[in-house]
Amino acid sequence: MKVRNILGERFKEAPKDCTIESHAFMVRGGYMRYMSNGIYSLYTPGKRIMQKIEAIIRDEMDKIGGQEVMFPVVMPASLWEESGRYTSIGSEMARFEDRSKNKMVLGMTHEEAAVHLARDIANSYTDYPFMIYQIQTKFRDEPRARGGLIRVREFTMKDAYSFHTSMEDLQEYYKDCHKAYENIYKRAGAKNVISVKSDSGMMGGSVSHEFMLLSDIGEDTLAICTECDYKSNMEAAECLTEPLNSEVKPLEKVHTPETKTIEALSEFLKIEEKDLCKAVVYQKNADDKYVIVFIRGDLEVNETKLRNYLGEEIHPAVEIFEESGIVAGFIGPVNSNAKAEMIFDKSLIGMNNMVCGANEVDYHYVGANLARDYGKEVEYVDVAKIYEGAACPCCGKKAIKIEKGIEVGNIFQLGTKYTKSMNMTYLDKDGKQQYPIMGCYGIGVGRLAASICQESHDDYGPIWPITIAPWQVEICALRADNEQVKALADSIYDELQKNGVEVLYDDRDVRPGAMFADADLFGVPVRVVVSPKNCEKNVVEISLRDKSLKTEFSADTAVKDILDLVKKEFEKYAL
Amino acid sequence: MKVRNILGERFKEAPKDCTIESHAFMVRGGYMRYMSNGIYSLYTPGKRIMQKIEAIIRDEMDKIGGQEVMFPVVMPASLWEESGRYTSIGSEMARFEDRSKNKMVLGMTHEEAAVHLARDIANSYTDYPFMIYQIQTKFRDEPRARGGLIRVREFTMKDAYSFHTSMEDLQEYYKDCHKAYENIYKRAGAKNVISVKSDSGMMGGSVSHEFMLLSDIGEDTLAICTECDYKSNMEAAECLTEPLNSEVKPLEKVHTPETKTIEALSEFLKIEEKDLCKAVVYQKNADDKYVIVFIRGDLEVNETKLRNYLGEEIHPAVEIFEESGIVAGFIGPVNSNAKAEMIFDKSLIGMNNMVCGANEVDYHYVGANLARDYGKEVEYVDVAKIYEGAACPCCGKKAIKIEKGIEVGNIFQLGTKYTKSMNMTYLDKDGKQQYPIMGCYGIGVGRLAASICQESHDDYGPIWPITIAPWQVEICALRADNEQVKALADSIYDELQKNGVEVLYDDRDVRPGAMFADADLFGVPVRVVVSPKNCEKNVVEISLRDKSLKTEFSADTAVKDILDLVKKEFEKYAL
Repeated sequence: MKVRNILGERFKEAPKDCTIESHAFMVRGGYMRYMSNGIYSLYTPGKRIMQKIEAIIRDEMDKIGGQEVMFPVVMPASLWEESGRYTSIGSEMARFEDRSKNKMVLGMTHEEAAVHLARDIANSYTDYPFMIYQIQTKFRDEPRARGGLIRVREFTMKDAYSFHTSMEDLQEYYKDCHKAYENIYKRAGAKNVISVKSDSGMMGGSVSHEFMLLSDIGEDTLAICTECDYKSNMEAAECLTEPLNSEVKPLEKVHTPETKTIEALSEFLKIEEKDLCKAVVYQKNADDKYVIVFIRGDLEVNETKLRNYLGEEIHPAVEIFEESGIVAGFIGPVNSNAKAEMIFDKSLIGMNNMVCGANEVDYHYVGANLARDYGKEVEYVDVAKIYEGAACPCCGKKAIKIEKGIEVGNIFQLGTKYTKSMNMTYLDKDGKQQYPIMGCYGIGVGRLAASICQESHDDYGPIWPITIAPWQVEICALRADNEQVKALADSIYDELQKNGVEVLYDDRDVRPGAMFADADLFGVPVRVVVSPKNCEKNVVEISLRDKSLKTEFSADTAVKDILDLVKKEFEKYAL
Repeated sequence: MKVRNILGERFKEAPKDCTIESHAFMVRGGYMRYMSNGIYSLYTPGKRIMQKIEAIIRDEMDKIGGQEVMFPVVMPASLWEESGRYTSIGSEMARFEDRSKNKMVLGMTHEEAAVHLARDIANSYTDYPFMIYQIQTKFRDEPRARGGLIRVREFTMKDAYSFHTSMEDLQEYYKDCHKAYENIYKRAGAKNVISVKSDSGMMGGSVSHEFMLLSDIGEDTLAICTECDYKSNMEAAECLTEPLNSEVKPLEKVHTPETKTIEALSEFLKIEEKDLCKAVVYQKNADDKYVIVFIRGDLEVNETKLRNYLGEEIHPAVEIFEESGIVAGFIGPVNSNAKAEMIFDKSLIGMNNMVCGANEVDYHYVGANLARDYGKEVEYVDVAKIYEGAACPCCGKKAIKIEKGIEVGNIFQLGTKYTKSMNMTYLDKDGKQQYPIMGCYGIGVGRLAASICQESHDDYGPIWPITIAPWQVEICALRADNEQVKALADSIYDELQKNGVEVLYDDRDVRPGAMFADADLFGVPVRVVVSPKNCEKNVVEISLRDKSLKTEFSADTAVKDILDLVKKEFEKYAL
């Protein structure tokens, strides 16, 4: 394809709304165009990258026995009412009424559709296991679209669903799928992708993993043990703390004026934050009722774990009303009149003489002992955020490192959540009715493209791995009005195409600087420069976009040399 | 792929809701599954057919310089407000509010998105012409989904948009696109596809064509001249009638009791229907105002032409209220007090002594002469339906044949409707601002698949052309538990796959009758039967699904023979 024919504009200045490099490059390089919050159109270079990633995903899914199918984007609400998610999912699911006033939804995931497709026909154990997948458009009314294709509302996703007759079979397949995902990232040229234990969230099920591309701009926080294999999304990471078993002392109320924060109290009493008890107030989304979490003063609350423990949605308390009995800044578990559910983090175990709020303005207790002073038995739960240097929940060593990652895939062992609620059954060997066990496996195609761009770029543009690059070779003909240049460049263009190479050809009448700047934005791995000077020497200049090579080849053998280079580039990403 | 692994069920009885063969076969053969009115999921065989058609379309679009892009499914209403279609399109467009109460729509066509993608960058005449296209999911809230994939609400469509700086350039490109469409149908194996002149409807623009697959189950009615090249959708066909120039007679009121219909009147007066004047009453959708069409008694009103003439939506009058002054059954243009717009069809030209209603119960006029009796000048317009045996609007011969067709594609010369309303401009050679001229070109992928099935099947199932068949060869191993059978069938399966052939392999333990019935429903063009009896003779039985071949080949050379057959099948659909 000729650059002159490509619809799109390339330019130098990063748009103001682009806060991360991949977004800026993909706008500046003419890959995508903003239409609405979290909604983009793709130009041809962007579309080509998507198609290449899709082809890799398709191949790996087929290799593990996947059957490609297609589910609808628009589905009847009734299907989602069966699973219970029509009500349990909030405003991130787009809903509308059709012309006959039927309630419809836009698919943001397709567990319901997968069960619908299979439930009437997979009735015997001999029909199992099987996996169906699709690559299609999804819409999720994301409240905080950001980073270009990193977090959007409309996106292309590969979603796969497997069905099994035993947990063992699911677990085996889950491993195959984990491996297939590793293959996908390797082949697509995503270098720093790790899999971490994850929180299953609205998907249901117990075991799940996320594939995280490590990146400073990642929105997910990961806990990684440097001593063992433990890797977890912070949301799902257990926070181990050592029981303190401190000395029991008498309860005493002390005057602590103006000490509404842990910092202020710590300073006032000259006690380290970790020896204080902090209270954090939440409200339940459903009824605004208060929930107070008591936790060691130096720790933070992991809201996902809290949410999972409560089994419902919560948010940090917006306002604390006097009639609640909660005395903001001086909240404590002892002698409290607060109308609130009280949660005690495990970090408080053994904190036998506790500093905590006295539920009275400007007063705290010291020496509080929950077993003695709380008045009823305390249940301790794990709702603390793991932290840098914390003990690893797996090996126990204090070796937890905190990193940021972009979620580029996830896999879930769903169990029977959907087959039970939607009444999908089969007859087992003994003629007994059973619910199939499901797994589901997702990859966002656009996010993966953007993440790879984020990982693989320099100051001038993306450095696309050849396996997903919009084109494999770019020919820059400097002075295509020169007959020799045109003849040589044209012939290389033709020859490479005849050999099945995808070639981008720039024969525009622009300055070399402008042409090279555009080439950097196209990010094509192999670049061939044909110029009058080179023609005189009967050479072409060949370089790699990642700057690992820049050399001259004889014009006579250039095509063969380029084909070799292309082959070598592909080998880098072979399994 | 092995039949035993394919998710899907094949069965004998056509479901009650399937009124056409292609729908029944695609349900019975496990191609698709109903989810909601006009909304289906596709199983793997259905998905594979779609992908093959898409690949053919993509190739032909690329050959005429098309650039594949991707537009969003969900778009902001504001974009459609720019073009005016947010209000002009009715309930067939799905609309919803997102979480921030922004009005959104689901794309049913993407002219607005195409202009949005191009308008800020194609600012110079040197950027033109170009064509962008996508293959993607669309949703149209169709009031009368029917026929399986023939008419659905959610569908996969290839939609292309070209932009030009002159009408001549558009017209040239339009021809290229017309040719590309012919290629697509040929390659996909659709045999009886013709292009007809069409009505441009809500798309705007003047010249447009539809590609029609001729079929009794088609919803479109076509006027085709058997003497010249004229082919038109009836909606867009001019109806030529010869001026009558009948003798002028005096106006006379006659008593015609109980003659409320043309048939009754014709019989009562012993006058042929074609010598009477018929009145047909409509109402405007906007304000319910009446419109009366006067037309020759033997002709029908073409509502599309009437709608286009009026420039607004109309419907047949639901009820005629007395205060309208319209005397139902006795409506005539002379001495009328009707509060209605009167339209005179061209078929009335020269009908100098007309029989028409006298606007009085049980009375008609004879000898009415519009020029003399109507009281003001009459404008005659063409709103009649063309009919079998009518004069051809092109060559004039009475050679019009009426046929039915399924619309499998359409192409429009849009002009500047969208670029003007959405303010897309470029600077021409002289630095003058101009609006680009657009064309648009659509093909529904699923409908094409279903139409080909409708055209190409026998009593037992689809006969897929090899270019779009879900698989190219099916191996039926009768008694795969027989070692010899298994060994031979396995080796043919492996060898064919190594040679790049897509093979379906049935090694299930089922009766031959059941296996062949399933094979007929899969519709795979080349069938290979391996059985104990054949093994003894060291042969395999090879047949074509269309029954044009059934023969035995030596097992030793079978793979080569099958490869030859596959090649020949492909040649049938080569350009």
